[in-house]
Amino acid sequence: MVDTVVSSATKEVVIGFERPFCVIGERINPTGRKLLAAEMAAGDYSRVEADALAQVAAGATMLDVNAGIPMADEPAILAESIKLVQSLTDVPLSIDSSIVAALEAGLAVYRGKALVNSVTGEEERLEVVLPLVKKYGAAVVAISNDETGISEDPDVRFEVARKIVQRAADYGIPAADVVVDPLVMPVGALNLAGISAMRLIRRLREELGVNTTCGASNISFGLPNRHGLNAAFLTMAIASGMTSAIMNPLRDEEMQAIMGANVMMGNDPECRRWIRKYREPLPEGAEQLGARGGRERRRQRAV
Amino acid sequence: MVDTVVSSATKEVVIGFERPFCVIGERINPTGRKLLAAEMAAGDYSRVEADALAQVAAGATMLDVNAGIPMADEPAILAESIKLVQSLTDVPLSIDSSIVAALEAGLAVYRGKALVNSVTGEEERLEVVLPLVKKYGAAVVAISNDETGISEDPDVRFEVARKIVQRAADYGIPAADVVVDPLVMPVGALNLAGISAMRLIRRLREELGVNTTCGASNISFGLPNRHGLNAAFLTMAIASGMTSAIMNPLRDEEMQAIMGANVMMGNDPECRRWIRKYREPLPEGAEQLGARGGRERRRQRAV
Repeated sequence: MVDTVVSSATKEVVIGFERPFCVIGERINPTGRKLLAAEMAAGDYSRVEADALAQVAAGATMLDVNAGIPMADEPAILAESIKLVQSLTDVPLSIDSSIVAALEAGLAVYRGKALVNSVTGEEERLEVVLPLVKKYGAAVVAISNDETGISEDPDVRFEVARKIVQRAADYGIPAADVVVDPLVMPVGALNLAGISAMRLIRRLREELGVNTTCGASNISFGLPNRHGLNAAFLTMAIASGMTSAIMNPLRDEEMQAIMGANVMMGNDPECRRWIRKYREPLPEGAEQLGARGGRERRRQRAV
Repeated sequence: MVDTVVSSATKEVVIGFERPFCVIGERINPTGRKLLAAEMAAGDYSRVEADALAQVAAGATMLDVNAGIPMADEPAILAESIKLVQSLTDVPLSIDSSIVAALEAGLAVYRGKALVNSVTGEEERLEVVLPLVKKYGAAVVAISNDETGISEDPDVRFEVARKIVQRAADYGIPAADVVVDPLVMPVGALNLAGISAMRLIRRLREELGVNTTCGASNISFGLPNRHGLNAAFLTMAIASGMTSAIMNPLRDEEMQAIMGANVMMGNDPECRRWIRKYREPLPEGAEQLGARGGRERRRQRAV
């Protein structure tokens, strides 16, 4: 069993096969959010703050922080955002940028062991990102594409993942600190995208022994009732061995699917989290009559 | 790939790894339905009729028909129900009884190739049910318990399933005509019931090469938000190789999960069924303007 340990200054989170699924909140990301981008560029972090708190309240295990705003000082804004989010919550963060200087600025201010998002199989990325991951003792998301782009062939993507894991080892980064993103394609465009992702996730788990993550909502791109499809994909990917996803924890349908998957995987002891979240409200006045505790205990025993 | 072919007089259904999931409607069953039991015992089949039509309209691939009413003439009522349901719909039926004379009465009037529900690993059941299955050229649900009861050990349940498949072969019934029910336990009572079921389903598929079914809602017994748990279980069991379930097709949440799972398994070509069911309604008047066809075609192309 491979455990990826990440942390904030005060809290450790373990991503692993026998752990509750790790929900990495995706909301703090100005890509496609014009208002947030403008605010962050102008030094207004009120929405970053609100997004951080709301995602943690909704059940996010970690938060992804991205400051990719065109023409802005991304390293400074990312570092500022990370300091702010770490002052507000104790969940570990994923430091998300395609700019190496921004990753380094984020890592420099980060307290704890971060998840660096991300490295790819491209030589020039491997050569600059992996030393940074090693220097700061971080973990890293490995995206399974390389110079030739994103292959539609899952075997090619598997080999790219293997190369990244091997290269990480050359830099002294253990496989347990590499979380592979197998790249989930939209099933509306590629009919076999779902089954391919599941098979790839299973191979990554069984053959490479690594944890996995993905941008889950990509699966439903272009289709109606996206949340229903995302929920089906998430549960099925978890059944295949996926251990984390970068996703929106404010979506009830997806979060219910993940809580149900935790129950099914045996990672919600005595179904306590499920019962706490979904037990029926008690009748009016039950609490005043002192019935609450007894009733709940009876219900749990009866299960 | 193992295909279990069942049929009515005019329609063939294939249960198989690369087929849309087979939903066997469970509603025509007087167990726990006092009103239905009283009506069926009195020769009033109006509710059987309504249940048959509603389940098929909701997307059932097959219907289970059970007439287990204490002190009633079960063989006659089961035969009558089957004749009625076959006169109303063309989906193949599962003939469900623990009384061998009732199974035989049902098989005698059935038009097509039925699914007999069920045989267990108990010697006396094997010796009477399998000859009947062979005589009528039916398929059979094999429940993985024997004289010693239902084992909590999935390995024991697997061996019971193997024994039934072997014994069926002795009677000339191919493995493709045996659909194994691995017996799903309530996850509220047994925390590992979900993961055990998934592993067992995978072994039944990979090692025995058989199709599988289950009474899906058993997983959530005693817990709140049962439909949410059933949905998670169904998708994850399908990801593990389950090919049918005896369930209530009138439940939207479970049916959405199954439609999503069909998409993910690559068994909904071009996501056509998903799109047809969930595409957004058109604005008022769009049809009159002749926009419907063009708009839908555009949306499907854009996917």
